[in-house]
Amino acid sequence: MSPMTEHAAPSDRTTVKRGKERARYAQDDVRRVLDAGLVAHVGVTTPDGPIVLPMAYGVRDGEILIHGSVANAMMRAGKSVEVCITVTILDGLVVARTPFHNSVNYRSVVVRGEATRVEGRTETLAALQVINDHIAPIWETARPPNEVDLKQTMVLSVSLTEASAKVRAGDPIDEPADMTGSHWAGVVPLHTTWGEPYAAADLTDGIEMPTAVTALAGTVAHPD
Amino acid sequence: MSPMTEHAAPSDRTTVKRGKERARYAQDDVRRVLDAGLVAHVGVTTPDGPIVLPMAYGVRDGEILIHGSVANAMMRAGKSVEVCITVTILDGLVVARTPFHNSVNYRSVVVRGEATRVEGRTETLAALQVINDHIAPIWETARPPNEVDLKQTMVLSVSLTEASAKVRAGDPIDEPADMTGSHWAGVVPLHTTWGEPYAAADLTDGIEMPTAVTALAGTVAHPD
Repeated sequence: MSPMTEHAAPSDRTTVKRGKERARYAQDDVRRVLDAGLVAHVGVTTPDGPIVLPMAYGVRDGEILIHGSVANAMMRAGKSVEVCITVTILDGLVVARTPFHNSVNYRSVVVRGEATRVEGRTETLAALQVINDHIAPIWETARPPNEVDLKQTMVLSVSLTEASAKVRAGDPIDEPADMTGSHWAGVVPLHTTWGEPYAAADLTDGIEMPTAVTALAGTVAHPD
Repeated sequence: MSPMTEHAAPSDRTTVKRGKERARYAQDDVRRVLDAGLVAHVGVTTPDGPIVLPMAYGVRDGEILIHGSVANAMMRAGKSVEVCITVTILDGLVVARTPFHNSVNYRSVVVRGEATRVEGRTETLAALQVINDHIAPIWETARPPNEVDLKQTMVLSVSLTEASAKVRAGDPIDEPADMTGSHWAGVVPLHTTWGEPYAAADLTDGIEMPTAVTALAGTVAHPD
């Protein structure tokens, strides 16, 4: 049995329908992709149709956390909201012998479930720290949120129970009949790295850059 | 009037609700972001709730094109499907003096509308070429799609009539009261570049790499 399919999908609606051989359902696989991702695309259904918005996110045991703004109107009505949260990392362009097999190398996770509000001051602060520290641990060296900040902040949690990961890596897979042809095939890798941090133009002289920030410079943004 | 708001939103549901000062509705702004993006997140509503899937896409005058797989079941039923297509480019991490103002620099486009099937052999081929050539013009040097390929391929078009772009760039914007504090603020830029292309392990010796592929090496993946 291939390692890509040794875990069963957690639910029917979470079962990957296309490219089944790329599907991975183990929580470890899901966590690895979510840890390496930078932005989530959050989908909700509105009376006007579906809407998908890019958002920051954080992950901790068994749940993904996002700011509540995406579902503000609905959450204020006191209901939980059905969402789909998708995180995608692009690793390269896959050039096949024929356009039908062109592809990209990528890692992605799709989470489906109910977004519920994180309640309580301590819990909200802890959840906010997870979101803020997702890319780098920049929470501890900043001015802590005050009551005004907190009043404007809502954090939503979605369980990772219904999450699946999908990973494509490696060479193109072409039709057998095309293997003897004269068309090129290969991969162009995509590299995403953090550059040199720079201070805000209005930063007071003499304030040192936090080590969490200096440590980012030159690192790979989507580690394996 | 700020250049960010000189164009009115094309419809009420397309009006950016949060971060209005970052909203741009001109077709030029939308097009620039879509041209520079690499992957779209496509949201549809299903009986099980919203679903968001990452997909390749292409753009041409007035429309965004995607493969039909995302909406296969629904499209087969002969209906058009209400979708939301979101393209996001991450440009950097914005570190504010307080976590409440931490942010990212980004460019994004949200397209809402009905996905309709591109009909006809010539039209389908032309639309497929637009999708395949979105990252680099790799269509012309490949083996053209045959009838078997085409039978398995559906292309969907969504009008850019209801599209809005949102752009955040530059330094963090902190509370006036925090400006005299001792907390650092600045930006860590994110660089996404194409690496050295390499041939598939099973490529026949002597087949030359297409110039469209060699030309990618070392280039910025999300040009301004």
